Amino acid sequence: MEHLHQSFTIKYGYNVFFTSGLFTVENPLLNDFLSAAQSASIKKILFVVDEGVVHTSPDLVNQIKAYFYQNNSAELINDILIVPGGEVVKNDTKYFEQVLRAVNSYGIDRHSFIAAIGGGAVLDMVGYAAAVAHRGVKHIRIPTTVLSQNDSGIGVKNGINYFDKKNFLGTFAPPVAVFNDELFLTTLTDRDWRSGISEAIKVALIKDREFFEWLTYNAVELGQRDLTVMNLLIWRCAKLHLEHIAGADPFESGSSRPLDFGHWSAHKLEYLTNFEIRHGEAVAMGIALDTVYSHLSGRLSAGDCQRVIQLLQQLGFEITHPLLQVDGADSPILLGLQEFREHLGGELTIMLLNEIGKGEEVHEIDTEILKQAGKLLLDMQFAVQK
Amino acid sequence: MEHLHQSFTIKYGYNVFFTSGLFTVENPLLNDFLSAAQSASIKKILFVVDEGVVHTSPDLVNQIKAYFYQNNSAELINDILIVPGGEVVKNDTKYFEQVLRAVNSYGIDRHSFIAAIGGGAVLDMVGYAAAVAHRGVKHIRIPTTVLSQNDSGIGVKNGINYFDKKNFLGTFAPPVAVFNDELFLTTLTDRDWRSGISEAIKVALIKDREFFEWLTYNAVELGQRDLTVMNLLIWRCAKLHLEHIAGADPFESGSSRPLDFGHWSAHKLEYLTNFEIRHGEAVAMGIALDTVYSHLSGRLSAGDCQRVIQLLQQLGFEITHPLLQVDGADSPILLGLQEFREHLGGELTIMLLNEIGKGEEVHEIDTEILKQAGKLLLDMQFAVQK
Repeated sequence: MEHLHQSFTIKYGYNVFFTSGLFTVENPLLNDFLSAAQSASIKKILFVVDEGVVHTSPDLVNQIKAYFYQNNSAELINDILIVPGGEVVKNDTKYFEQVLRAVNSYGIDRHSFIAAIGGGAVLDMVGYAAAVAHRGVKHIRIPTTVLSQNDSGIGVKNGINYFDKKNFLGTFAPPVAVFNDELFLTTLTDRDWRSGISEAIKVALIKDREFFEWLTYNAVELGQRDLTVMNLLIWRCAKLHLEHIAGADPFESGSSRPLDFGHWSAHKLEYLTNFEIRHGEAVAMGIALDTVYSHLSGRLSAGDCQRVIQLLQQLGFEITHPLLQVDGADSPILLGLQEFREHLGGELTIMLLNEIGKGEEVHEIDTEILKQAGKLLLDMQFAVQK
Repeated sequence: MEHLHQSFTIKYGYNVFFTSGLFTVENPLLNDFLSAAQSASIKKILFVVDEGVVHTSPDLVNQIKAYFYQNNSAELINDILIVPGGEVVKNDTKYFEQVLRAVNSYGIDRHSFIAAIGGGAVLDMVGYAAAVAHRGVKHIRIPTTVLSQNDSGIGVKNGINYFDKKNFLGTFAPPVAVFNDELFLTTLTDRDWRSGISEAIKVALIKDREFFEWLTYNAVELGQRDLTVMNLLIWRCAKLHLEHIAGADPFESGSSRPLDFGHWSAHKLEYLTNFEIRHGEAVAMGIALDTVYSHLSGRLSAGDCQRVIQLLQQLGFEITHPLLQVDGADSPILLGLQEFREHLGGELTIMLLNEIGKGEEVHEIDTEILKQAGKLLLDMQFAVQK
């Protein structure tokens, strides 16, 4: 049969910059970046900021205005949008539409920029709006949490929730730049500071034993909010995530999701607790569950298993939750497993551990072992709390 | 300043198949394509069909059902969606949401397919829904008009209108396959049959003089609805469009839009006439305008200019419209020029002709010459109508 064949490649590239005080008037980083962007026309920049960040950094909006008053690499849209943080900004499409309306009113075109400042949820929503407005406006990410600086904020995915389903709408659309500003980290609550560490543990467990050793060695400093140590953690974790995205299947055309280690049960738990349990907290529990499962199913040694649980507990993470227990065929966690299978398109693929630093994908989970793993973790948690 | 650099390439590829009777039970083309797609899970396929196509091919829905009853390469979603054709399907987001609802209800995942059958507008809307649902469901295009088979339906863009702006929302997302079925061409009105030819003239004028000669040589057969000649036209025009997309800047990161020759005024005219003038008809008038402008501004010879106008008229196209006349500073066409400039991001870039088969991009349009060009065309049109 006759046919024409179409074939081309698209090259994507962007930098993840590390800085302190991105909007200090004297800091040339952002201005230089914007100046270097080629455009025959006036470059505009629209900011969308996480409400939570405005609360902890009340001067931020004025700093941004002062920065662009002094540095004229782009025309600042003075109407800086402020949107709620967390899942609410992804649940209600009105925030997505608010960004689109601004794009329309202020004449933001494909050569202009939309910058998002905030946690992962805000970056996801704004990234989606930027990806679909005019078939793609240039998007700058300025993640403010540990979690978004080392994981979600530096990657290529965006999305909003729809039909009560997480990220039902979204695209793969790399940002043009990411700016990780350490000053935002100092404003985090202890809970948010800690939460983001679980993604570092996750990526260490599946890819980098040395990084796991480093995390163990630095656990006390991390708990004491040592900024230098945290910056090193974020750098290395971000590097591992970037390498993974670039190496395998950036836009996830296959079913394999190694970076989702510990995530299948975490997603369900977040949802069941109406997101009162933070993503990073849920991931810590999911890591604990899949680690103990890896041990009980004969993959991971008892010693390695214990070291993982100890690190999680030393950092102050809870290692399990009553909703993660298998207690009959209709337990929420078994439903979560089923949903994850559907999400992947029919075949279950779950990452487990053979040793620290080395993962293995499996396509089946034994309900009885899962039940034992949950129970064991409940006992261990109880022992600590006593 | 320290930074991490991310860089990767994504390879895109798809075939544009040519066939006759795609849903004839014995035609293995679609079934073979679906069978070859790798997936660990059951592949589902959801169809969205242009209402206009259902009117002219009333058996189509039953044919699709019979096809998948006999050929089991994918599980057909029995609820075949039927949506209006033309701009209305892009103007009201309810059709976009109708596709999303079906994706949700029928569990269409990233390994499943959404196939769109229809004219360019339906393909644009469905393509957009497919691109953003679950961050991208596999999309199959089955264009049914001359225009969509040789141009819009085989490319990488999708979109819907929003805030009364054409394609305000959309993405660049290549389909996984395009199936051009000649049988649909036989059901077209004379007007739709003719309309699509203008994109072939356009691409010939800017890229391929030999193709222009071929079009001139075959103008009578094209007018007489010779299907063999039309298939050759579509093949060559599609090939030129595919080569252009692959060669230069597939996702249009720059400002250059050579394939938009004759389109800047056409877009405005379509809008001003509430889309009563077909895209292809408006493009024919836009081509005539930019061709005469090319001549009057000293670029194109009188002979070449005349041959273009003659071909358009021989094929039965109107070559201009009262709304394309410059009649004072607030003429709609001058407003259209301004809007096109804004759409491109500030710098105007318009393709003109130096000779047949050879374009040249310019960044300025002389209002006085534009006025003369419009008037000349009006006189020529009048002479023919008399």
